Amino acid sequence: MPTDADFELRQRLRRIATLGSVTALVGWDEQVMMPPGGTAFRADQTAMLAGMIHGQVTDPALGDLIADALDASAASPDSDAAAVAREAARTRGRAVKLPAALVEALSHTTVLAQSAWAEARKANDFAGFAPWLEKVTDLKRQEAACLGAGGKPYDALLDEYEPGETTDSLTTLFDAMRPRLVTLLARIQGSGRQAPTEILRREFDPVAQAALAREAAIAIGFDAAAGRLDVSTHPFCSGIAPGDTRITTRYAANDFAGGLLGTLHETGHAMYEQGLPKAEHFGTALGEAASLGVHESQSRLWENFVGRSDAFWRFFWPRTRSAFASLSDVRREDFLFALNAVRPSYIRTESDEVTYNLHVLLRFDIEQKLINGELAPRDVPAAWDALFATLFGIDVPDAASGCLQDVHWSCGLMGYFPTYTLGNMYAAQLFAAAGEALGDLDAHFARGEFAPLLQWLRNHVHC
Amino acid sequence: MPTDADFELRQRLRRIATLGSVTALVGWDEQVMMPPGGTAFRADQTAMLAGMIHGQVTDPALGDLIADALDASAASPDSDAAAVAREAARTRGRAVKLPAALVEALSHTTVLAQSAWAEARKANDFAGFAPWLEKVTDLKRQEAACLGAGGKPYDALLDEYEPGETTDSLTTLFDAMRPRLVTLLARIQGSGRQAPTEILRREFDPVAQAALAREAAIAIGFDAAAGRLDVSTHPFCSGIAPGDTRITTRYAANDFAGGLLGTLHETGHAMYEQGLPKAEHFGTALGEAASLGVHESQSRLWENFVGRSDAFWRFFWPRTRSAFASLSDVRREDFLFALNAVRPSYIRTESDEVTYNLHVLLRFDIEQKLINGELAPRDVPAAWDALFATLFGIDVPDAASGCLQDVHWSCGLMGYFPTYTLGNMYAAQLFAAAGEALGDLDAHFARGEFAPLLQWLRNHVHC
Repeated sequence: MPTDADFELRQRLRRIATLGSVTALVGWDEQVMMPPGGTAFRADQTAMLAGMIHGQVTDPALGDLIADALDASAASPDSDAAAVAREAARTRGRAVKLPAALVEALSHTTVLAQSAWAEARKANDFAGFAPWLEKVTDLKRQEAACLGAGGKPYDALLDEYEPGETTDSLTTLFDAMRPRLVTLLARIQGSGRQAPTEILRREFDPVAQAALAREAAIAIGFDAAAGRLDVSTHPFCSGIAPGDTRITTRYAANDFAGGLLGTLHETGHAMYEQGLPKAEHFGTALGEAASLGVHESQSRLWENFVGRSDAFWRFFWPRTRSAFASLSDVRREDFLFALNAVRPSYIRTESDEVTYNLHVLLRFDIEQKLINGELAPRDVPAAWDALFATLFGIDVPDAASGCLQDVHWSCGLMGYFPTYTLGNMYAAQLFAAAGEALGDLDAHFARGEFAPLLQWLRNHVHC
Repeated sequence: MPTDADFELRQRLRRIATLGSVTALVGWDEQVMMPPGGTAFRADQTAMLAGMIHGQVTDPALGDLIADALDASAASPDSDAAAVAREAARTRGRAVKLPAALVEALSHTTVLAQSAWAEARKANDFAGFAPWLEKVTDLKRQEAACLGAGGKPYDALLDEYEPGETTDSLTTLFDAMRPRLVTLLARIQGSGRQAPTEILRREFDPVAQAALAREAAIAIGFDAAAGRLDVSTHPFCSGIAPGDTRITTRYAANDFAGGLLGTLHETGHAMYEQGLPKAEHFGTALGEAASLGVHESQSRLWENFVGRSDAFWRFFWPRTRSAFASLSDVRREDFLFALNAVRPSYIRTESDEVTYNLHVLLRFDIEQKLINGELAPRDVPAAWDALFATLFGIDVPDAASGCLQDVHWSCGLMGYFPTYTLGNMYAAQLFAAAGEALGDLDAHFARGEFAPLLQWLRNHVHC
């Protein structure tokens, strides 16, 4: 039964989250709609909003409300009220360690850094991004130092995205994973079987790709009346507000897989956002994703366990083939083999299920060193290229195919990448459990029925 | 020379305007991008932002800053500092008369009312909008009562858009205008000459229309790197932030004039926003439009004095004709005559230069009565249709062609319409003055040269 303390805390959190939703909308617009002339002022807007939210979260009055709500719910630690109070305390506990000036500086700098990154990536010019990487890294080091609670500096950043996760525990994980992935990759490469990947590099009209991707997103369960699907430089999903979840994808004329699988990936995120009980719990931890690892489990599950499956393509192949003249001579089996090709590649988002985690552990290694001060931002390309050659056995041709490929660092998202690997692992376990509970998922997929799987995820993960 | 008081006041005003720019972006998104599922929560966001801005404007600390700045600039009443302080005092003076609850209610209600209006207009169903018109009218009556300073209630609303304007002065204006417009219209209709308006109702692919309209907007001077051009139910322009001014238009396959002239109209607004000295003066009156009448003078000038001129079409006809097969048998002279046809019509935004002001004075009459309490919102269709028949001599066929056509009332913009007529009159005078200063404008236009006129407006109006 909700107490007054719970009610008052929720009211306050909802207001803060409403301001957060405005910030999310402003961020979406920045990436998808804003004209170049708006960049400089957008940084002011964003920094102001970040400062206002930080001010509201660190307001001592909120601290009092949380303390009251913790007291009132102490007797029932498994109740909703206890969870709301506990997670609010966690969020506020992190915020009060950060000076407002640092929060505003990070927010302001990352708007400009993202714009510089997009330019630098297009121009394949690391030097153009280097000063921004320097600035962001410096601010993130300061943030880690403020947040630090005895562990490694990088731990404080990991904890933002995956509560409780540490460098040591991830190191153990990746150390176990690395040799097995490298061995597996070598075995596959030595098998003598070559997937016909040129199929996916033929001509695919981006407008037709976007229409097909939209159809796929809606087929698996995206609610288009409560969201949008657009194009941006770096695909992302933003759960902007209750009833408003937006996906972006990018389409290239000679890349079928990136557009469609990218859309399924973001749709997985979006369906998680659409499945969260926001109507009731918006602003509290109960209305938010459990962690970014869990968020990635939803995107990776739909991208890989569904989108790369034979069963999905039994359903989706006829309309795909008829949408592109370039596929008229292609057999479904060959298309599917191409979509599941395993081989070293440069771009994480376009990589396969075997090499994906190698991409992540490379970033995990470099980020730790950046934040711990062992690696200077200007030396990132050299470090990246050296480690890439070790892991993948091929040389990075240029910065755009190397350390400039991801938007994350320009956004200050250091510590985020490991959640992709955690997501892959959670996804495998969730998909296995769903299969046990629901029986023959392949038969569902082949008929275009995805609602049972989505409903299972709604019941067991989203809520 | 700026004083400390001026500097501090400007800092504070800039912060308020930054929050205002976020609100403007949220409003643009609502009309152009937001999925239907986002409407309910968007009302919460918007009301919160309106409440925050109202809180900052009414903050006694701002009152103190304004008082200091007024004192410090009293000796030089024509200085920038004096103007900034004076206009800030005017804005704050209005705001402190309004209870925060009313401001938030207006903001919340108008988001929902706009959505209801868009549905009702599409469905041609006044009953669906009536309860919302009731709510908005009631809130605007409350607002007028709070703001009132002795004059008629409607005066308080006029003053928001055209500082100092009154019902009495506009009544004098419209009383003088009405008989002359009615007589002129009758003379034109009795002339026996019929413009070949069917030309403009042929088939025009909306995508090609949008491309052509974009070309026209850029040709006359819209800076596309500092703005966007999109599609929405009701065309508008929003000067969201420094470097970010956005236009919307609507295109219908059987209406050439609405799309192109509508775009030129909004481009006139946009070029005013892009010409304001925002880099230096954002947040102060010096960085804002002088009034909405002046704003409309810019849109109407480019729409009518340029966009309906023979000279403009000497420049723009070849590419227009080649863009549409439906124009292949059309002579420029006939096209131009059609574009300048004068005749009674139902839709204000599609009307000609003679009847436009009749549309405005109809709304002026109805709005006054709504706000003064002489007319009930549910009786608006009957009042509209009766007055329309008197002024135009034709019967309104349905609500979508009558009182449901404009977005304004759903936004709470009662008191705005008269600024269109003021804008028409200002535009005529400005265009005449520009012609005297610049010589043969027709020769410029025919060569596609619009920069001299724009620069004259920048120097004499925008700054």
